[in-house]
Amino acid sequence: MRDANAPEVVVRRLALYLRVLNATSADDKNYISSQELGERAGASAAQVRKDLAFFGEFGKQGVGYEVGFLRGEIARILNVDRVVRFVILGAGELGVALARYTQRRRETEHGYPFLLAGLFDVDPSKIGQTVDGTAIEHLDALQDAVKESGVRMALITVPAQAAQEAVNASVRAGIRAILNFAPKSVSVPENVRLHNADVTLDLHHLAYFL
Amino acid sequence: MRDANAPEVVVRRLALYLRVLNATSADDKNYISSQELGERAGASAAQVRKDLAFFGEFGKQGVGYEVGFLRGEIARILNVDRVVRFVILGAGELGVALARYTQRRRETEHGYPFLLAGLFDVDPSKIGQTVDGTAIEHLDALQDAVKESGVRMALITVPAQAAQEAVNASVRAGIRAILNFAPKSVSVPENVRLHNADVTLDLHHLAYFL
Repeated sequence: MRDANAPEVVVRRLALYLRVLNATSADDKNYISSQELGERAGASAAQVRKDLAFFGEFGKQGVGYEVGFLRGEIARILNVDRVVRFVILGAGELGVALARYTQRRRETEHGYPFLLAGLFDVDPSKIGQTVDGTAIEHLDALQDAVKESGVRMALITVPAQAAQEAVNASVRAGIRAILNFAPKSVSVPENVRLHNADVTLDLHHLAYFL
Repeated sequence: MRDANAPEVVVRRLALYLRVLNATSADDKNYISSQELGERAGASAAQVRKDLAFFGEFGKQGVGYEVGFLRGEIARILNVDRVVRFVILGAGELGVALARYTQRRRETEHGYPFLLAGLFDVDPSKIGQTVDGTAIEHLDALQDAVKESGVRMALITVPAQAAQEAVNASVRAGIRAILNFAPKSVSVPENVRLHNADVTLDLHHLAYFL
């Protein structure tokens, strides 16, 4: 069950727990304690229990969590118990690296949910080139591509000055969740979720603790 | 003044405010209201005032914030009022893209604080190649490089199975802040700050809201 009151950091940690559980399943282990799950995800046992309590009762006293069950539950909560298609706007160095990276993860990792559904740019010299089998299309083709495939998620990797325009085109096409790598704040309507992923923000955040 | 009680999200938004102020200064504007700062950073005016209140009194009633002053104060709070050197461990596609990206930002953006001080790998075929003027060195050279330059921050872009080893080498060398892009949880001593930057975590987080 999703919980609208779960803080952002809790959702973020759920993704970490899921990553640990995916690795654990590969080891064919049946149960995991909140202690071990926490240790492997960088959280305390109490934190794990508190985070999961936002969404339900998943463990058994003295036994822990059944790995496959908890993995399925967290995947459902995060909406990744199905294939999640996304597009990338901006086929520059970062866009191409992210395209290749996610495709490699999908090829090598059982159950990796994210699938690149399209890669878009406006540079005529790039249109038609392929990145690991995905052809770079003109941004004008975004609307049809999104409609056809039901994509709701977009990664924005265009230059700063093109970011708002790329976001507007995404929203018009029906995108509802945007990860913005461009070093510029953009605005979105209320029904669209926007996260900022510019690495410079991460560096600033980290520098605070130096 | 830094505040140990400021939540993570507040620190994160400070970086967004700074980004807006950097762009504003270029326009040669003297004052900015919490309303406008918020709008351009994707927050409400009340949020801006509340966030800044963690660190001090920066605005004047009815006038707003003096752009240059607030920019300097936030830069000081985030420790980016000086050059912040960092190293990248892992000269694969992502590591190279991040090296190029930060160097380009530094060349084109006045006051961009982050400076690549070294790029490391273990692949003999990569050692000695250069990325925009930075030579790829063997990981064995990390300790001396970090000691010489006083670097405290590292980006980890090695494959998952090499992540913990790269983190250990960083910590031994004196690194105190780590941004881990590898899709694997790693552990660090208590005096080292670790952030997870694997894009797959961002995608999971975003999928939650679909």
